[in-house]
Amino acid sequence: MSIVITVGREFGSGGRELGRRIADELKIAYYDKEILEEVKKRTPYSLSYIESISEDRPFTLPSISYGNSFMFYKDVPLEQHFDVQNAQVEFLKEIAAKSSCVIIGRAADYILRDMNPFRIFVYADMQSKIERCKARQKEGEPQLTDKQWAKKIKLVDKKRRNFYDFYTGQYWAEKESYDIMVNTSHTEIKLISKHLADMLRPAIETDKKEVKTEA
Amino acid sequence: MSIVITVGREFGSGGRELGRRIADELKIAYYDKEILEEVKKRTPYSLSYIESISEDRPFTLPSISYGNSFMFYKDVPLEQHFDVQNAQVEFLKEIAAKSSCVIIGRAADYILRDMNPFRIFVYADMQSKIERCKARQKEGEPQLTDKQWAKKIKLVDKKRRNFYDFYTGQYWAEKESYDIMVNTSHTEIKLISKHLADMLRPAIETDKKEVKTEA
Repeated sequence: MSIVITVGREFGSGGRELGRRIADELKIAYYDKEILEEVKKRTPYSLSYIESISEDRPFTLPSISYGNSFMFYKDVPLEQHFDVQNAQVEFLKEIAAKSSCVIIGRAADYILRDMNPFRIFVYADMQSKIERCKARQKEGEPQLTDKQWAKKIKLVDKKRRNFYDFYTGQYWAEKESYDIMVNTSHTEIKLISKHLADMLRPAIETDKKEVKTEA
Repeated sequence: MSIVITVGREFGSGGRELGRRIADELKIAYYDKEILEEVKKRTPYSLSYIESISEDRPFTLPSISYGNSFMFYKDVPLEQHFDVQNAQVEFLKEIAAKSSCVIIGRAADYILRDMNPFRIFVYADMQSKIERCKARQKEGEPQLTDKQWAKKIKLVDKKRRNFYDFYTGQYWAEKESYDIMVNTSHTEIKLISKHLADMLRPAIETDKKEVKTEA
């Protein structure tokens, strides 16, 4: 059976880099933005819309009261939200069934819980996250102050937390939801990812052999 | 400079085993109960008394009021508590200065923070901790039910949390206080400790070379 490695991460902690490196070390598939592209193919929505909600909980509209009775109007954003989530869940199950892989975010640890994934969470202190965000900024992107970066980081993580907690009934960034939690503030990502890959390699090799035998 | 590896742990999570294995792999010193023995030599107290308070916060007695004035009587348990803590801190600083080592508990991560220790925290789900406690029970020790074990585990961890939070101003078992957090519920301790040791080995080898050169 495929080995699934999931990576939850705080914004700016280097979780994507860590996941990418583990996938490269183990020569297995890696899914992050690829998931959005696939959801775009399967739904009528734009990539930017999908990206904006792919890790956010549904936007709940207040109910409207008429006199003494309550009425809920047809909640279009909510339906669109679930369209995207359903396509995402379907795609994650497909790729996990196909071969061993690393999946970034999207509550994949919970969605694929029947496959007993190895669940990594990556975090760092605020200053270290700000530095990483600045370092990976592309030319032409607006320059933010440290304070603005901190605000942005907190906002993205708040959305991720809401999304995760809403869909899983577990708690995002709480140790009970993960197998290992890695602080990248003082440790090189290259170093951690290498040793995590070494730890996971025997399971992956066994899976590759099984796939070969089946073929 | 010595490399210090500290291991915080939930009761029954296998943190001691993990620390012991890392020390064995790296051929460096290991301190756990040894700390109590040393504190015994340095204070007038019994081993069982030292053990009972070595990871607990001081017991604060209520003040007694006489009429309208308040008076605090000489707080003997509090003084004894600080005697033990001072001896413990002194000893931890001595051993860390001497050579690279693994230290279990006792807020060593905070006490030795100037040495930039690698801070591990080990945890597990309750059922897995109960199973481990049962498996390591010695003959003749009273048999507890799962419910009684759960109560005991929670009590020990509550003391550890109180101790840690009181002395460090940080939060026990919260990710911000550690470099890596390891869930032993579904992963073999032998496997994790080997790969953590591999990750830390280059730093330890460098330290050993330095010690040799100095000698």
